[in-house]
Amino acid sequence: MRALVIEGPGSLRYRDVPEPAWPPGEARVAVRLTGICNTDLELLKGYLGFTGIPGHEFVGVVENGPGHLIGRRVVGEINAACGACETCRAGMERHCPNRTVLGIQKRPGAFAERLSLPAGNLFAVPDEVSDEEAVFTEPLAAALEILEQVHLPPGERVLVLGDGKLGLLVAQVLARHGCRVWLRGRHERKLALARRWGVCALRIEDCGLRNEAAPGPEAEAQSAIPNPHSAIEGFPFVVEATGSPAGFREALSAVRPRGTVILKSTYAPGELPALDAAKVVVDEITLVGSRCGRFGPALRLLAQGKLDVRGLIDHRKPLAQGEEAFQLAARKGALKVLVQV
Amino acid sequence: MRALVIEGPGSLRYRDVPEPAWPPGEARVAVRLTGICNTDLELLKGYLGFTGIPGHEFVGVVENGPGHLIGRRVVGEINAACGACETCRAGMERHCPNRTVLGIQKRPGAFAERLSLPAGNLFAVPDEVSDEEAVFTEPLAAALEILEQVHLPPGERVLVLGDGKLGLLVAQVLARHGCRVWLRGRHERKLALARRWGVCALRIEDCGLRNEAAPGPEAEAQSAIPNPHSAIEGFPFVVEATGSPAGFREALSAVRPRGTVILKSTYAPGELPALDAAKVVVDEITLVGSRCGRFGPALRLLAQGKLDVRGLIDHRKPLAQGEEAFQLAARKGALKVLVQV
Repeated sequence: MRALVIEGPGSLRYRDVPEPAWPPGEARVAVRLTGICNTDLELLKGYLGFTGIPGHEFVGVVENGPGHLIGRRVVGEINAACGACETCRAGMERHCPNRTVLGIQKRPGAFAERLSLPAGNLFAVPDEVSDEEAVFTEPLAAALEILEQVHLPPGERVLVLGDGKLGLLVAQVLARHGCRVWLRGRHERKLALARRWGVCALRIEDCGLRNEAAPGPEAEAQSAIPNPHSAIEGFPFVVEATGSPAGFREALSAVRPRGTVILKSTYAPGELPALDAAKVVVDEITLVGSRCGRFGPALRLLAQGKLDVRGLIDHRKPLAQGEEAFQLAARKGALKVLVQV
Repeated sequence: MRALVIEGPGSLRYRDVPEPAWPPGEARVAVRLTGICNTDLELLKGYLGFTGIPGHEFVGVVENGPGHLIGRRVVGEINAACGACETCRAGMERHCPNRTVLGIQKRPGAFAERLSLPAGNLFAVPDEVSDEEAVFTEPLAAALEILEQVHLPPGERVLVLGDGKLGLLVAQVLARHGCRVWLRGRHERKLALARRWGVCALRIEDCGLRNEAAPGPEAEAQSAIPNPHSAIEGFPFVVEATGSPAGFREALSAVRPRGTVILKSTYAPGELPALDAAKVVVDEITLVGSRCGRFGPALRLLAQGKLDVRGLIDHRKPLAQGEEAFQLAARKGALKVLVQV
């Protein structure tokens, strides 16, 4: 079959590869559409020393597997757990230490004509959800994971740092949940998108803050922008989704005493931020690491048709032009690039 | 009046000082007994650029204040809040940005014959609680704060890192709460103390781990000692109370996916540990900064007579020998040193 293969840092090739093995209990999925995630870009740069087929945001059709799934459009939970260890038995399959992860860890990914996943990882896509919406199930589940982990009552003020794809999804999900959401970003085009969702989107320049004609709760927004030296004005909840260590420092400055910072970004090993323990302990801050979420709730939200994920799509490219698709996705300020298989 | 005064880094003097002012709403307390806390030792080293009278763990008798308190033995909440700001109105007076803090921030402390605190900060000590027990109210409240912040069901496994005064109190409180508690420390004398409370206390040498004839759930303890490279064996809850950045790294190694690390230690600005965001995000770890707690529950626990705080007392010295008392408290492995006023 044809696939995009990372052969080493910086080297992505469209070429023939062997079909994946179909071990017992796994289903064969013909891929239709795959999204490029920042993790894919990092893998191409050398993250985790990855080689092989990347891709974990997909929608496809089951060719072979359990009868009730054959011919169905599906999306797939990317963590394939062992099901037998203590972590799995505690219901934390996504954290199984023996897991493989689609297109990331010991399992060929979705930039290919076909992929293999345990049948139990697959979720049928409701008819009312298009392919271009369904392909957002995985990142949407990651955004929803915040509401699984943190008790975040509607009406609370939340600051989202970072207007990348995940930051935008988080802002949209939390605004829809009823939170009063502020988004700090760098790209006017993305901030304008967020404003359509009722988010108070503000531009940050060189870590200063300028207000770019944001609509809505403007005066409140300005008074709510935290002064790093004033504990009073901080936010009770801050989501760090910048991917930059500076974002972590900003999150700690912006959160109020007893507040919660949700960490969605990882950082390169060479640029880990220092943990300001005096701030965290004296102000009794809670930091919550947050990664993948459940597919079921994400699909249900998409089926309700109330989320705007299509607004996040920048480009569509065929698999044969995968290299160009990755280049487009790597451009500063790019949103989602989809690869049609 | 006589007091111990920090005149600069390393300089502690027993001398005459003016009586504190008694502003309206504040009560005058004749101090009877004051405990030396690690924070006091840090202040003497230059922490916060502190000068003045340190001391915040005390028991005394009210000389002047509200009628119902006069002549009563009291302990006192150390954070004196403004009561008017947004943080105070949100019920977080201990985090008031305008607060003074007894013996730490803009308020003379308890190594003195008399001190002043808002009447609302004082708690009458029940008759069944001795002075030597009551003086532990503040650090005990700090240990109990963990149970205010984190839902920690009895029966859960908890690893406490650090056998200092606070680590020991935390281990005791959590064991009494019904948790299965492991304590990793350096001092056989302290570990033996913890074993009397049903804690599985283990010695750590140079960050390796050797099992020093701990009683009780021995086999379980050994199997539960986390392998930093195995997510399966980690603890669901880890309390970091070592005061060392290495302790923070150990806590992250020891916690299992989706587990919680409670941070009780602050670190010097020059030795802040790096935040391993990949670990925190991928394993979805929660970090909870934890500082001061409520006095009421601490006094009630002491009144029940079920806690062993006297076992934590190493020395008693009169105020005139305060310098020697601080030297004893600064010795490696020292437990609580009390100053009699």
